Amino acid sequence: MKTFHITHPDESIRAALTDKINNLTKPKGSLGMLEELALQIGLIQQTLSPTLRHPQNIIFAADHGIVEEGVSLSPKEITWQQISNFLHGGAGVNFLCRQHGFVLKIVDAGVDYDLPYEKGIINMKVRKSSRNYLHEAAMTEEEMEQCMERGAEVVRLCHNEGSNILSFGEMGIGNTSSSSLWMSYFADIPLEQCVGAGSGLDHMGIRHKYEVLKQSMDNYKGNGSVRDIMRHFGGLEMVMAVGAMLQAAELKMIILVDGFIMSNCLLAASMLHPEVKDYAIFGHCGDETGHRLVLDSLHAKPLLNLDLRLGEGTGAICAYPIVDSAVRMINEMDNFAHASITKYF
Amino acid sequence: MKTFHITHPDESIRAALTDKINNLTKPKGSLGMLEELALQIGLIQQTLSPTLRHPQNIIFAADHGIVEEGVSLSPKEITWQQISNFLHGGAGVNFLCRQHGFVLKIVDAGVDYDLPYEKGIINMKVRKSSRNYLHEAAMTEEEMEQCMERGAEVVRLCHNEGSNILSFGEMGIGNTSSSSLWMSYFADIPLEQCVGAGSGLDHMGIRHKYEVLKQSMDNYKGNGSVRDIMRHFGGLEMVMAVGAMLQAAELKMIILVDGFIMSNCLLAASMLHPEVKDYAIFGHCGDETGHRLVLDSLHAKPLLNLDLRLGEGTGAICAYPIVDSAVRMINEMDNFAHASITKYF
Repeated sequence: MKTFHITHPDESIRAALTDKINNLTKPKGSLGMLEELALQIGLIQQTLSPTLRHPQNIIFAADHGIVEEGVSLSPKEITWQQISNFLHGGAGVNFLCRQHGFVLKIVDAGVDYDLPYEKGIINMKVRKSSRNYLHEAAMTEEEMEQCMERGAEVVRLCHNEGSNILSFGEMGIGNTSSSSLWMSYFADIPLEQCVGAGSGLDHMGIRHKYEVLKQSMDNYKGNGSVRDIMRHFGGLEMVMAVGAMLQAAELKMIILVDGFIMSNCLLAASMLHPEVKDYAIFGHCGDETGHRLVLDSLHAKPLLNLDLRLGEGTGAICAYPIVDSAVRMINEMDNFAHASITKYF
Repeated sequence: MKTFHITHPDESIRAALTDKINNLTKPKGSLGMLEELALQIGLIQQTLSPTLRHPQNIIFAADHGIVEEGVSLSPKEITWQQISNFLHGGAGVNFLCRQHGFVLKIVDAGVDYDLPYEKGIINMKVRKSSRNYLHEAAMTEEEMEQCMERGAEVVRLCHNEGSNILSFGEMGIGNTSSSSLWMSYFADIPLEQCVGAGSGLDHMGIRHKYEVLKQSMDNYKGNGSVRDIMRHFGGLEMVMAVGAMLQAAELKMIILVDGFIMSNCLLAASMLHPEVKDYAIFGHCGDETGHRLVLDSLHAKPLLNLDLRLGEGTGAICAYPIVDSAVRMINEMDNFAHASITKYF
């Protein structure tokens, strides 16, 4: 079983970081979340002059057996069609990557289609689609381990390329269903409050989705451990994202968390290693029912509230300039003594 | 009296804009506020392919006679000292301007100090500090007209330089007091709910500030018109910002609104010309008591909630990349037909 060695950042630098931030030429605390982010990133990087290097957005993609039960408005082929769109640069994630200087990595975790790997998609396919968890576990233990290990492998690749900040996104029709189930188990929230519209279900559609998921929970006969629930109900791309997040934390990289699905992956990762939260910055609170609840359960303060619900990493990348602002603040702002300004607090 | 000719954007292009946005390769509405911004900017610019050109942040600076009454934690000299800091590039606004490609214009509306104009500060000084409105009107009618006209003049300069988007900020110790008074009159909100900590007053300090402002209201014997209240309680930099905002709207430029003070300037501008709101994008909801209330009274949806309360335009500039994302979205995303993706809504 893949193990990770994740520790809290050393706290001994906190006082020096706080002192530096408090002496910048502004009323104390007046840059709000930028100050909190600068502190967090300084702790992660153990420096008073943090940097952001070579940001990358990794999209893990897979199909879901549960889609057979009609839980999604979108047909399954959207998964591979959107990957094609990512390759051609016409999707939501593409203009955001271009805007903020992100490299985009597309990882096939388990898409039910023969993708053109020669075009740059990273082939980490564990199997074509997860199994239908209404009737059986979504993946075997071996498949789950492969997902965790391969997610970690992609992150090590990015680390070797010089990145110290990664955002994680997903593409997988049906994955809000897996997310709702993980959330209900891991955050101990009734399933009703975890199920939402996904890509656009109406009231009847949400009701049907809930019934299918409720039945799936009733049918579950596993041991109830975190790993077993991840395995039974997980999307292949989601388990891969968990492995990626844990590897990123082990390597002391900044994890930018996207929307509903990635927030639940971070939740799952934190059930295995609570320290992973110290490395996470939550990009946004989306429009999907339950996203606010899962963020609250993580005590997360999302940077944006723009009613986004696209996934792909879009909400995380949208939030990147704020993270960049925090780093620029601590590096570029003058202090009271040097600027000859009367310190006014 | 300076007059402005401000009209609502022509609505005839709305259907085509909505259709373009809805056919981009994403679930309908899934880019939330980005979609709303793209629509608004398309309406302002009357095009399906809007652009952002040469963004500039204009800081209007002035001193306030009311500071004599001890309403601010910060001493008055901070106004000119921070302007010096802006010139040297070490302030909060500077790193944000560098990050997002903004030109910074510093405008002396009424600083009580002989500033070094040769260093690039724009001299629009109407007088050295407003008068103390506890005892008399802050400015004469002629001074108010000069403020409005000079604010408009700065915006025409930016327009001639090729800008179509401006953010407005301020520097002026004491200007949260003027803002609270404008807010109470123009939004019809009891003064208690409009008064906050400014640059860091404690509970006792806020109480004293409230008492001074309440007494100022009691002493006011004017005619109660919008212009008279602006004149009596206004900061010189605030009236200048109102003139600037109205000129920007007349020229169909995008107005990025910063924090508590600039939100109240937009409120005042909208009392004179309600159409100005069509051109305004609200950058953030800050940490100052009352900011949320004034935004609500304007039916404004601020883009960020980062607990900022620095002013200078920082909250508006922080929000700029989101506006940029909206414009990139409508220009760069592919549509369903061209991308050969099954339209799934």
